[in-house]
Amino acid sequence: MKSGLRFLMAATRCEIAELQQLAHTSELVNVTARLVHGLQHERGLSNLYLATPTEPDSQPLRDQMGECQRTVQALLACFDTLHDQANHQVSAHVGHGARLFSRIAYVLHGLDALPHLRQRVLQRQWSAPQATAAYVKLIAGLLAVVFEAADSASDPQVSRLLVAFFNFMQGKELAGQERATGAALLAAGKPDAAGQQRLLHLIESQDRCFQIFNDFASPALRQLCAQSQDPMNLAELERMRRLACTTPTSGALDCGLGPAWFHCCTRRMDELMNVETQLAHDLMTLCQEKIDAAQQTLQGWNKWQQPPAANPSAEDEDRQAMVFFDELPAPLSDPHTLLDAALPAVAGGHSSQVERSILQLVREQSLRLQTMGAELDTVRASLTERKLIERAKGLLMAHRQLSEVEAHKLMRQTAMNQNRRLSDVAQTVLAMAEMLPPAR
Amino acid sequence: MKSGLRFLMAATRCEIAELQQLAHTSELVNVTARLVHGLQHERGLSNLYLATPTEPDSQPLRDQMGECQRTVQALLACFDTLHDQANHQVSAHVGHGARLFSRIAYVLHGLDALPHLRQRVLQRQWSAPQATAAYVKLIAGLLAVVFEAADSASDPQVSRLLVAFFNFMQGKELAGQERATGAALLAAGKPDAAGQQRLLHLIESQDRCFQIFNDFASPALRQLCAQSQDPMNLAELERMRRLACTTPTSGALDCGLGPAWFHCCTRRMDELMNVETQLAHDLMTLCQEKIDAAQQTLQGWNKWQQPPAANPSAEDEDRQAMVFFDELPAPLSDPHTLLDAALPAVAGGHSSQVERSILQLVREQSLRLQTMGAELDTVRASLTERKLIERAKGLLMAHRQLSEVEAHKLMRQTAMNQNRRLSDVAQTVLAMAEMLPPAR
Repeated sequence: MKSGLRFLMAATRCEIAELQQLAHTSELVNVTARLVHGLQHERGLSNLYLATPTEPDSQPLRDQMGECQRTVQALLACFDTLHDQANHQVSAHVGHGARLFSRIAYVLHGLDALPHLRQRVLQRQWSAPQATAAYVKLIAGLLAVVFEAADSASDPQVSRLLVAFFNFMQGKELAGQERATGAALLAAGKPDAAGQQRLLHLIESQDRCFQIFNDFASPALRQLCAQSQDPMNLAELERMRRLACTTPTSGALDCGLGPAWFHCCTRRMDELMNVETQLAHDLMTLCQEKIDAAQQTLQGWNKWQQPPAANPSAEDEDRQAMVFFDELPAPLSDPHTLLDAALPAVAGGHSSQVERSILQLVREQSLRLQTMGAELDTVRASLTERKLIERAKGLLMAHRQLSEVEAHKLMRQTAMNQNRRLSDVAQTVLAMAEMLPPAR
Repeated sequence: MKSGLRFLMAATRCEIAELQQLAHTSELVNVTARLVHGLQHERGLSNLYLATPTEPDSQPLRDQMGECQRTVQALLACFDTLHDQANHQVSAHVGHGARLFSRIAYVLHGLDALPHLRQRVLQRQWSAPQATAAYVKLIAGLLAVVFEAADSASDPQVSRLLVAFFNFMQGKELAGQERATGAALLAAGKPDAAGQQRLLHLIESQDRCFQIFNDFASPALRQLCAQSQDPMNLAELERMRRLACTTPTSGALDCGLGPAWFHCCTRRMDELMNVETQLAHDLMTLCQEKIDAAQQTLQGWNKWQQPPAANPSAEDEDRQAMVFFDELPAPLSDPHTLLDAALPAVAGGHSSQVERSILQLVREQSLRLQTMGAELDTVRASLTERKLIERAKGLLMAHRQLSEVEAHKLMRQTAMNQNRRLSDVAQTVLAMAEMLPPAR
């Protein structure tokens, strides 16, 4: 009996360790979301600054850069904590840790380069599109960290929330790219087909992300998301979207719309940020609630560690041991009731009742963990699409010596030309991998 | 640069920690396989002993029980190591650890009860079918531990081997049950329809297990499996299977066939054990090879931890940092060559070449880990069938107050009656879960 209880408790301690690790990861995701929002703002201000022909005021941009850099420092501290924990294997991110660390390794290069990028912007050495592309790349690296966190979560409920979070962040980033693309179109004064196609693509992908967010978020979060966006602002955005996308290339766009467009998009992104704050809050709360619940269960079991009946008779011992080969009664729902109900039996010397209760708890725990595992697999399946795209991009880079940007462009263009989804194109690329010329 | 390298290495250290954990788990699987084989032998001898009407010689059975108990002790030591490791979180089985521990908790109850079961057998208090059912239940618990180990492996190649191992063990256990069922049929002297149906079911399920083993095992293992079975013995087995399964219930079975049947089945199981020994060996070798390779990679990177160029110029530093926003060259294949090729460049002061190389290594590592993750998902999908059955059984136990044996019987009978696969019936049960009466 004692040994079974010991491992019942060990299983719960494992769950707690995993949840604590998830709480750390959630904190990381939270700081990452703040940094991404800061960088999106910085990108917007950079665009304005670089687009202004004569000596613009650099102060708002410098302020934002300073604030953003403080969030960078906070994120670096998070990374360091994670690194130290893994090094001392206090709570090694076993299972998916390697992938998460690999994503962090990548994005660190970008964060190291950020001050140098800012120099080029402030000194107006780069054009607005160049700067935009650089920020997009850095933010994509940060989103990949969040993606890996969602994929590595070991609890289905937390994983659901992380999937919702990732898709929300992704949608918001596409909204940010829409702002830049639309601003460039309006600034040019005349529409070009490629820009219009790109804008439509961004709007469509954005909607898909928010749809997945809706599928995975709680009703309260969905409601918050719907309420936090001002309908007037949305209507204005849709009107300008229509203008930008449908004006024939022979026609002209009103350059004066530029500031209105920028303002409208920025306002929407700030509204979306409020949802992210709530998401981060919900995530931390959920982790903590689950840790507390598991710890309470563990404590309830703790008192059973010492066998209460001293010197059981050989007959008692035999009856107790053979419970395994008996049939079990139907399960109860509350783990505490189950053991507490057995307490009088123990006092009376019938320790086989305790054995029966523990065995039943073990069965219930096992069933619960299996159900959780199945739910987790279902949630993770929603991430497959992006994984396919990532892997196909990597393959194209390796086999066809393309840069990341080129590989993505090639796949996106193929999808547009063949009117297929990007993930379908990715699947084809992966299926054809054998036929591609080998890497060097 | 330094920070990126640090996490590149941290990712590899994570991989090593996971592999070391897998090596521990493999050792556990190895000892479990030996114990299962020992228990199968013990079950066979118990059957013979209990079936013999007059004072049989108990010595062979006692010897086997003694040997088996030593393997039990070895397994308990493995469990203890695992428990202590998890408790000190040296290498917590994070992610799937809770499930593995839960399975261990369950089987420990059975191992505690084993000496009491043996008393009943030696004192002839139980019938052969009763004893068989008890051994079957205990072995099923041990197989569940191996199943969880296969499901929790973080490396696709190791996972493949564990899936092959689990299915092989499962097939061999069904062969053991076939031995007992056939022996009972022949001992009765006249066939009964239920026994014949059960025998056919065992043969069919066995074949499916060995088929999955074939799908996942290396060609060398498949060959060993084919060669280790004596064709004469197999032909004799098939002949007796035919007799036992096709003799009409109005006819009679030759009781004298009993010993030949038992001998033939036992010989086959011993032959299969040789394959398990090789499987265990391959598993340990694979883990060690992978650990060695990862450690070598890590050492190759170690020397890059100290930045070789002292006091780089601001210009150098800038060029180095901005590599992130450049395009990367096409990847190379050998991580050592890549960094070593950069060495002269560093000596000459062009540290941006090193940055480029590290960034490329990070990309390649990331792609490799993603590919591994996708392969792992594919391998784990092969375990879905059994997971469905387990969960459905648990649901039936909880909602319809059935014992484990009853739940399994109900599903098996439904599958036979409707001529559907057990996993299809399980899926229906899970789909209907909402409609079942709630658990008390």
